[in-house]
Amino acid sequence: MIKGLTRAGLGQVGPVERFATLASQFGFGAIDAGGKELEDWIAAAGLDGVNSVLQQAKVQIGSIGLPVEWRQSEEKFREGLPRLAKDAQTAAQLGVTRCCTYVLPSTDENAAHFMAIATRRLRTCADILGAYGIRFGLEFVGPHHLRTRWAHPFIWDINSTLDFIEAIGKSNVGLLFDAYHWYTNEATFEDILKLRAEQIVHVHINDAPNVPIAKVLDNNRLYPGEGAIDLVAFLKGLQAIGYTGVVSQEILTPQPPTAPAEELLARSQRAFASVFAAAGLE
Amino acid sequence: MIKGLTRAGLGQVGPVERFATLASQFGFGAIDAGGKELEDWIAAAGLDGVNSVLQQAKVQIGSIGLPVEWRQSEEKFREGLPRLAKDAQTAAQLGVTRCCTYVLPSTDENAAHFMAIATRRLRTCADILGAYGIRFGLEFVGPHHLRTRWAHPFIWDINSTLDFIEAIGKSNVGLLFDAYHWYTNEATFEDILKLRAEQIVHVHINDAPNVPIAKVLDNNRLYPGEGAIDLVAFLKGLQAIGYTGVVSQEILTPQPPTAPAEELLARSQRAFASVFAAAGLE
Amino acid sequence: MIKGLTRAGLGQVGPVERFATLASQFGFGAIDAGGKELEDWIAAAGLDGVNSVLQQAKVQIGSIGLPVEWRQSEEKFREGLPRLAKDAQTAAQLGVTRCCTYVLPSTDENAAHFMAIATRRLRTCADILGAYGIRFGLEFVGPHHLRTRWAHPFIWDINSTLDFIEAIGKSNVGLLFDAYHWYTNEATFEDILKLRAEQIVHVHINDAPNVPIAKVLDNNRLYPGEGAIDLVAFLKGLQAIGYTGVVSQEILTPQPPTAPAEELLARSQRAFASVFAAAGLE
Amino acid sequence: MIKGLTRAGLGQVGPVERFATLASQFGFGAIDAGGKELEDWIAAAGLDGVNSVLQQAKVQIGSIGLPVEWRQSEEKFREGLPRLAKDAQTAAQLGVTRCCTYVLPSTDENAAHFMAIATRRLRTCADILGAYGIRFGLEFVGPHHLRTRWAHPFIWDINSTLDFIEAIGKSNVGLLFDAYHWYTNEATFEDILKLRAEQIVHVHINDAPNVPIAKVLDNNRLYPGEGAIDLVAFLKGLQAIGYTGVVSQEILTPQPPTAPAEELLARSQRAFASVFAAAGLE
Repeated sequence: MIKGLTRAGLGQVGPVERFATLASQFGFGAIDAGGKELEDWIAAAGLDGVNSVLQQAKVQIGSIGLPVEWRQSEEKFREGLPRLAKDAQTAAQLGVTRCCTYVLPSTDENAAHFMAIATRRLRTCADILGAYGIRFGLEFVGPHHLRTRWAHPFIWDINSTLDFIEAIGKSNVGLLFDAYHWYTNEATFEDILKLRAEQIVHVHINDAPNVPIAKVLDNNRLYPGEGAIDLVAFLKGLQAIGYTGVVSQEILTPQPPTAPAEELLARSQRAFASVFAAAGLE
Repeated sequence: MIKGLTRAGLGQVGPVERFATLASQFGFGAIDAGGKELEDWIAAAGLDGVNSVLQQAKVQIGSIGLPVEWRQSEEKFREGLPRLAKDAQTAAQLGVTRCCTYVLPSTDENAAHFMAIATRRLRTCADILGAYGIRFGLEFVGPHHLRTRWAHPFIWDINSTLDFIEAIGKSNVGLLFDAYHWYTNEATFEDILKLRAEQIVHVHINDAPNVPIAKVLDNNRLYPGEGAIDLVAFLKGLQAIGYTGVVSQEILTPQPPTAPAEELLARSQRAFASVFAAAGLE
Repeated sequence: MIKGLTRAGLGQVGPVERFATLASQFGFGAIDAGGKELEDWIAAAGLDGVNSVLQQAKVQIGSIGLPVEWRQSEEKFREGLPRLAKDAQTAAQLGVTRCCTYVLPSTDENAAHFMAIATRRLRTCADILGAYGIRFGLEFVGPHHLRTRWAHPFIWDINSTLDFIEAIGKSNVGLLFDAYHWYTNEATFEDILKLRAEQIVHVHINDAPNVPIAKVLDNNRLYPGEGAIDLVAFLKGLQAIGYTGVVSQEILTPQPPTAPAEELLARSQRAFASVFAAAGLE
Repeated sequence: MIKGLTRAGLGQVGPVERFATLASQFGFGAIDAGGKELEDWIAAAGLDGVNSVLQQAKVQIGSIGLPVEWRQSEEKFREGLPRLAKDAQTAAQLGVTRCCTYVLPSTDENAAHFMAIATRRLRTCADILGAYGIRFGLEFVGPHHLRTRWAHPFIWDINSTLDFIEAIGKSNVGLLFDAYHWYTNEATFEDILKLRAEQIVHVHINDAPNVPIAKVLDNNRLYPGEGAIDLVAFLKGLQAIGYTGVVSQEILTPQPPTAPAEELLARSQRAFASVFAAAGLE
């Protein structure tokens, strides 16, 4: 598995080039980034220039975010597709093979109707990404408070999301598997063993405060190893099924951290070292 | 449009051969039937024999019912697929081009999850039917009491069903358009004009008692022209968009009617004559 | 049916706005255009400005061309997709519902392999177009000389193209039906009757010199009614199946015509008047 | 990897129950079988009875054959689908997860047209199999003499077959990877490394006589290790990409072997032991 970073929880890591360099300095092999910032970087430094920086830093772009608003109006949805095609093209030029979005666990729409619409829209996104050899990860979102945040329950667990993926019906769609959502679903090591590695597109890692699971808030996350999630079981499960992709830290917090990026990166480095070692990973 | 009959509301019309003959005698050009009974008929009379009876009677099989239980367990669903393939093969041998199922407007399952599962399962059914050149009609179900009959709202109107069909994503899937559900949705002539004829696989006709729409019960239907539904607008709308397929009477009642079939068929014949004439159809 | 024009055979009709105005002056209700020129027009005149010109002229954009090179390398193919998404978005803003490409009847690639690749690539195009409510028309190309122009035979007739469309498997894909290719396939009025109107996305009209069919060259076309094609049967067939879309003149010639556009448009107007009248169309 | 057997090359192994028992006695963990014979076995011994024999023998059913004729007429194709649904249901009850067919490298049909038809038909097969959790393996066929056996070249190598699979577009379709076809394509260890394990549904192993590759005949195969194929590279490649499925011996010969089954099974056992050991596999 490749240690990776998202910006969440790292404060001011600056533009993507600096973020890549910092990640490299602290022992990470991947960063998640936005398609648009990659495009801007290529515009400034040239494709060869960007690839050269990434190769020298031994850092890959783990995943890009989905630049399409698929949860609101049809008009909004359509507006994002040219950007998605452009981002996918840019990402493919850098060898990026993953793009991800998250699925909220409740909705103000009629849930069945919204599922039908979401299935169609995310299929279109998968089609465009697939044309560039990019896989598409859907992140189920587990925290209980979000399951009732909007009027109607949607989906939030592994099995429902796998069924959603089958409804979409494209071979390049899989899970974004986040330790936080695994934990808040009270899913187990055995639940991971039921998965095949190729069903997992991307992984997020982080930790949760030691409060009753039903009280765990989505944006109150801790550094890996500093909380209550059994990340050793999480990582061992992923290893057992043969997952070899990126595991990206994502620490959503009420306020962005104010400590210097270097300090937070060093803390991340120690956090990864600790949980990877405990899981018997290098 | 072709005047058609389902068995609902006709009492004892007997086996399919007699049903076809009776339909012919009372001026109908189509009957809906089950795949299994068609198969049995072919086994008894031979394919040529059956086709000869139907041609002589100038009666076609309007639609077969879906022999697959797609609303319960995966095991149940799988059990029905060999029967579906067999029924589709049988139907194709008789030139049948339609198969239909209905979609209940509420569910005890998580609605979003069930929509994902239903999308996949009905796609499989559509795939099998499509291999035999058969279109697949989904009937939305409008009566208000069924929208709250089970724990969670599902879908019950035209637009949601069209979105469901797009989620399924197969070109042979369309609407079974039933006057009763059009009425209980308070849909209009203009709503029909928004449709294209090829989006409609099959049509049901019947009438509703003159009670507030929210009180209309699904299984309390009247003969066409005997109730409150504006069937003239309904038929004119279908004609305006170029629908030329079958319009089948379906009269669900609390108890099966006890009058002789001939009497009920004569009443059906008069009912059709009346509403077709009022709509300017032959 | 709506009388339409492509630029082919019309000489210097100028930018799209002038083309639309000229078309209107000579009694046409549609022009085919490129997505990029529509985008430029909107950039210059505003969406409302463009829509206002089109509405005043009573001219619609019949179809846009596919801006994707799907016949060469994967890289080339990918390059075109952001443009396709942008063109589709632009087209949808103007109410355009058709985009078309042509399929050459021979190839230097292994024909089976190229069919597999083309199926996937055109499906992606159909997916993107479908997201904007746009249908995608595939034009089979009949002239004999092109069937042997490249090393291996590909496809050139109605049935093969319908099978290609089924292989693509998207409900928004259909035929671009061109009188020239219908003629060079020696297809008949009855062959048109076998089609359903919704299988036809767009129609091209033109005429062929009176030489043996095997000698008819693709880029040696005549104005409708000036040659050997039975356009009355062609139009009557389309009418019989209920086709109500655009019929666009497309006259490919060895050299672009040098006569003034107005002269050529007047000739087109007379040509359409003549064949439409002969077919009993207004 | 699991050592498996097909009947090809084993002479008289008898009905499937005896075949399973024999396979077990000679150290094999899988046999390929037909859906119909499994159904008959279940009819005779009960589902529990069959599962009990297989579990005691530690033998799984590696793959069933596709009972659908997809290469000829549409009528023939349709005839096979009810049987496919039934076979898939039977197979799923025994935990079988693979079904395979082969793709001939030339055809008397127009190759592009046949590819379009094959894409649609095999997609339907994949849909039905997928409903039962069964993957579908397509075997490319390499021997040169078959590439020109029929009028037009079709496809015969890894990349074309992967493109075929993408044209089909279902996530449960992959390769049946046969050492003989890998060899006759002059494919390499590196070519295997380009694959992902999940792209391979099933593997056949066998050997080829030491003649020029262009002279290797499809039905003149040898036991693994007795010929010219570098099966060590073959197996090491599969292991390197993480393939853990069944590797089934398939020895096509001009005449069925006449030696007693036990003798041929013992020879197979030695053949596997030898090549597996040489490849560093147990």
